[in-house]
Amino acid sequence: MRESWATSGSDLHLELAGQRSKTGLEQALRAAVRREQLTAGARLPSSRQLAEDLGLARNTVAEAYGQLIAEGWLTARHGAGTWVAERTPVSVTAEPPARTAHSTVDYDLSPGVPDLSLFPRAAWLAAARKALSAAPNDLLGYGDPRGVEALRVALAEYLGRVRGVVTTPERIFVSAGFAQGLDAVCQVLRDRSTQTLTTEAYGLPLHRSIISARGLQIATTDVDADGADVDSLGDAALLTPAHQFPTGVSLDPGRRRRAVERGTLVIEDDYDGEFRYNRAAVGAMQALAPERVVYAGTASKSLAPGLRLAWLALPGHLVDDVVEAARLGGRLPGAIEQLTLAEFIASGSYDRHIRRVRLIYRRRRDQLVELVGARDLRITGIAAGLHALLEVPDEERIVHRAAAQGLRLRGLRNYAAPGRTGRPAIVVGYARPPQHRLAETFARLRAALP
Amino acid sequence: MRESWATSGSDLHLELAGQRSKTGLEQALRAAVRREQLTAGARLPSSRQLAEDLGLARNTVAEAYGQLIAEGWLTARHGAGTWVAERTPVSVTAEPPARTAHSTVDYDLSPGVPDLSLFPRAAWLAAARKALSAAPNDLLGYGDPRGVEALRVALAEYLGRVRGVVTTPERIFVSAGFAQGLDAVCQVLRDRSTQTLTTEAYGLPLHRSIISARGLQIATTDVDADGADVDSLGDAALLTPAHQFPTGVSLDPGRRRRAVERGTLVIEDDYDGEFRYNRAAVGAMQALAPERVVYAGTASKSLAPGLRLAWLALPGHLVDDVVEAARLGGRLPGAIEQLTLAEFIASGSYDRHIRRVRLIYRRRRDQLVELVGARDLRITGIAAGLHALLEVPDEERIVHRAAAQGLRLRGLRNYAAPGRTGRPAIVVGYARPPQHRLAETFARLRAALP
Repeated sequence: MRESWATSGSDLHLELAGQRSKTGLEQALRAAVRREQLTAGARLPSSRQLAEDLGLARNTVAEAYGQLIAEGWLTARHGAGTWVAERTPVSVTAEPPARTAHSTVDYDLSPGVPDLSLFPRAAWLAAARKALSAAPNDLLGYGDPRGVEALRVALAEYLGRVRGVVTTPERIFVSAGFAQGLDAVCQVLRDRSTQTLTTEAYGLPLHRSIISARGLQIATTDVDADGADVDSLGDAALLTPAHQFPTGVSLDPGRRRRAVERGTLVIEDDYDGEFRYNRAAVGAMQALAPERVVYAGTASKSLAPGLRLAWLALPGHLVDDVVEAARLGGRLPGAIEQLTLAEFIASGSYDRHIRRVRLIYRRRRDQLVELVGARDLRITGIAAGLHALLEVPDEERIVHRAAAQGLRLRGLRNYAAPGRTGRPAIVVGYARPPQHRLAETFARLRAALP
Repeated sequence: MRESWATSGSDLHLELAGQRSKTGLEQALRAAVRREQLTAGARLPSSRQLAEDLGLARNTVAEAYGQLIAEGWLTARHGAGTWVAERTPVSVTAEPPARTAHSTVDYDLSPGVPDLSLFPRAAWLAAARKALSAAPNDLLGYGDPRGVEALRVALAEYLGRVRGVVTTPERIFVSAGFAQGLDAVCQVLRDRSTQTLTTEAYGLPLHRSIISARGLQIATTDVDADGADVDSLGDAALLTPAHQFPTGVSLDPGRRRRAVERGTLVIEDDYDGEFRYNRAAVGAMQALAPERVVYAGTASKSLAPGLRLAWLALPGHLVDDVVEAARLGGRLPGAIEQLTLAEFIASGSYDRHIRRVRLIYRRRRDQLVELVGARDLRITGIAAGLHALLEVPDEERIVHRAAAQGLRLRGLRNYAAPGRTGRPAIVVGYARPPQHRLAETFARLRAALP
C-alpha cells in the first residue's frame, strides 16, 4: 500500500461543511479520522492532489497537514507522504456479535466439506486466464439468467456422460450453490400451490429451513437400508438417491421407479455423485423421468464450496418460472467463475481432478474401514461419497471424548428431522482433513472410539 | 477435446440394465446416443478403460464398439480412438422459448451498463492470481455469510475514504449484485412488519418487482430538480441520492437531512457514486445517519455487471437479520471473486481503474453535451454518473427513428412508476458503447434527433 499517490491514484472524499479554509479542512480531516473514515495507516493524498480535488490552494492543504501532524492525528516521512497515525480505533457503535464465527478446532471430521488443500489452484487460474482472454465483452454484462451458455453446454455434456442425466443446455440453470437453487424451486412450487414438500428423516437442517422460509410445509419420510421410503411421498420431495445424506445408503432401484411413477416432483440432490468407489455406478434418478425430477449437482464437494457454483437440470415446465424467480432474487453467480468452470470442464481438467481426488478419498475410506474394523464397529455408506456412517453405542460420549482431544465429530442426531431421535452414530467426513493431517486426525478418532 | 483418453481421463456412466454382455453393452451405448447422453463428436473411453470401469472383458467392449461402428452409431480412426458419429440431434422434448434472448442491436445508448471493453482483464487476472496464491485453504470453504473478511475490510476503508460512508467491516454485507441485497433487505423489512416501501417516480422496474415479490406495498414519491420529495416518505424508502436514476438529479442537502430526520429507513442505491465530474463531491447520504440508512454500492458500473459483486453498509440493527435472510436464500458470491476484488482495491488498482474510466466517460459526456447543444435541446443529470437525461419534444418518435438506424435508445417512460406518464425525454447511457464505436453511435444519435 505504500506506493506513491500518483500511481496509486487513491480518492478521498471530504465534506468541507464549514469554511473552505485551513481550519475547515483540519476539522474535516479530524472528523474523518475520528469516525474512522480514514483508518490508522491509511495514506493521504499529496497536498497538491488534495488541493486540486477540493479547489483549495496547495499551501492551505500543506498547512492543515502540518497542524494535524503536530497534533498527532497524522504522521509523515519526509518526501514519502502522509499517513493517518496509529491509534486505538474507536467503533462508531457496539458491533453485533459475530454469530457466524466458528471456534477453531485442530482436527475435524464433520461432513460436508472436501479437503480444500486439494483445490487445483494452478489449473483453475490457468482456466480463468484462458476463459477471460477468450470471452467476448458481452459476457461481462448482465448475462442470461440461466447462466453463461458455454457453461450450460459443458454441463449438459458432462452430466449426460458421467451421471446419465437427460438434459439440454436450455434446461440447465446455474446457481450460486445448491441452497440457492433449492430456494428458487421452492418459491416456484409454492407459487403453484404446492403445500408440502417431503424430506428424508435425516438431512441438512439448512435445507429444511429454506423450505419452511418459502412457506412450504415439511413432511418427513423414513430412511432404511434401501434409502428413503417412497411410498408416502406427496406432491414434491427432496431426496439424495445416490448417497443418502448423511446415512450414506443408496436408493433402491425399485424405489426409484416407484417414486417417479407416483407423479411426485423429486428434487434429486446429487451432492457427491462423482465419488463412487465400487464398480457398479449409480446413475442419476433423473434419467428415469426428466419431466418429474429436478437434478441438482454442485462444485462444492468436487472442487470447493467457496466457488459458489451449482446447477439444476430442470424439467421443461419449470425452466421459465425458476429462471424468473432467480432473476427477481438476484441469484446469479459471477460470469468469470462460470466461464472458468466451463473451460475447466471442456478442457478435461475437471475429469482429471475428479479422478485424482477420488483415488485419494478412496484410500482414506479404506484406512477408515480398517481403523473401525479393528474395533468391531459397523460402518455403512462407504460405497460412495465423502463421508460414512459409524454406528456406535453412545454417540454423545464419543463426540465429547473427541472434542476433548481437539477433534470435531458430528453425531447423526444433528441431522435428524425434528421429532426424530436418530440411531446413535457418527457421521465421519473423512474427506475434510488436509492430507498432511490425516494420520493424526485418524489417530484421534481411534482414541475417541470405544 | 481430441486428446488421448489417458490424459483427459474422462468418465462415462453407463447403465447395463440387461445382461453384462456384448449385447447389453451395445444396447446401453445405443440408448446413450439416442437420448444424447453421448452427443455427436463426444469421445469414448478406450476399450481397455471402459472394460475396467464396467468389469467386462476388454474383447467384449472392443466387439461392441466394432458392432456400433458398423451400424453407424460410432466412428473410429485407427489408433486414434472412437467417437460418437455426427448425426442430427433429436431433442428430448420441445425447448422452452429463450425468453431472455435479446435481439442484436448494432448501436446502443440504453443506460445501466458501462463500456465492457474497458474491463481491466489483465489487472483483474493478476489480482486473482495474487489473491488465490495467498488465500488460506479455509477461504475456499463455506465462508462467512457476510462475505470474505479481506473484502469487507477493503470496502469499509474504501467507502469511508471515497464516499464518506461511516461503517466497519462487521457491518458490510457482500452480495451478488444490488438486486440480491435489495431482496434480502426487503425480506427483513417484511418480517419486521413494514408494510410499504416508497420508491421514486422514476426507477428500475426490476427493483419494483423485487419489492412486490417480497410482499411489500409500493408507494411512489415525486422527483423534481432537487431530487425525490422526501416529505411524504413512510417507514422505508429506496432512493438514489447521488444521481437519481434515471433523471440524473442530485438530492438536495436539505432534503437529505429531512429524510433521515423523519426516521425513515432509507436504502441508498449509490449505483454510480464513483463517477462525479464536478469539483464538489456529493458524499453518501448514509453518513448523516448510519443507523437509518442502508448504503448500497456495486461493482456493476465501476467494473462489470458480470462480476456479480455488490455491497451493503448496514445499520447495526439490521446486520444479523439480513445475513440470516441471505444465508437462507443461499445468496453468497464466490470466494475467489471476492478475494480478487479485495486485492484489486487494496493494491490501488481499483482507484486507478476508476480514475482512468472516469476521464473517458467525462470526455464522452462533454461530446454529448456539445452534440445536443447544437440542437438547442436541454440535457440534465450531467454532473455525475454514466447517463444523462435529454429532453425531447416527442420521445417515441425519436426512439423509433433511432431504431430504424440500428441505434437503441430508451425513453424516460420505460422507467416511470405505474400510473405515471413521465415527461418526454431520452435516457442516454453514454458509457455503454465501446470506445471504437462511440463516434458512429453519436452520429446516429445526431441523425435521430429533431
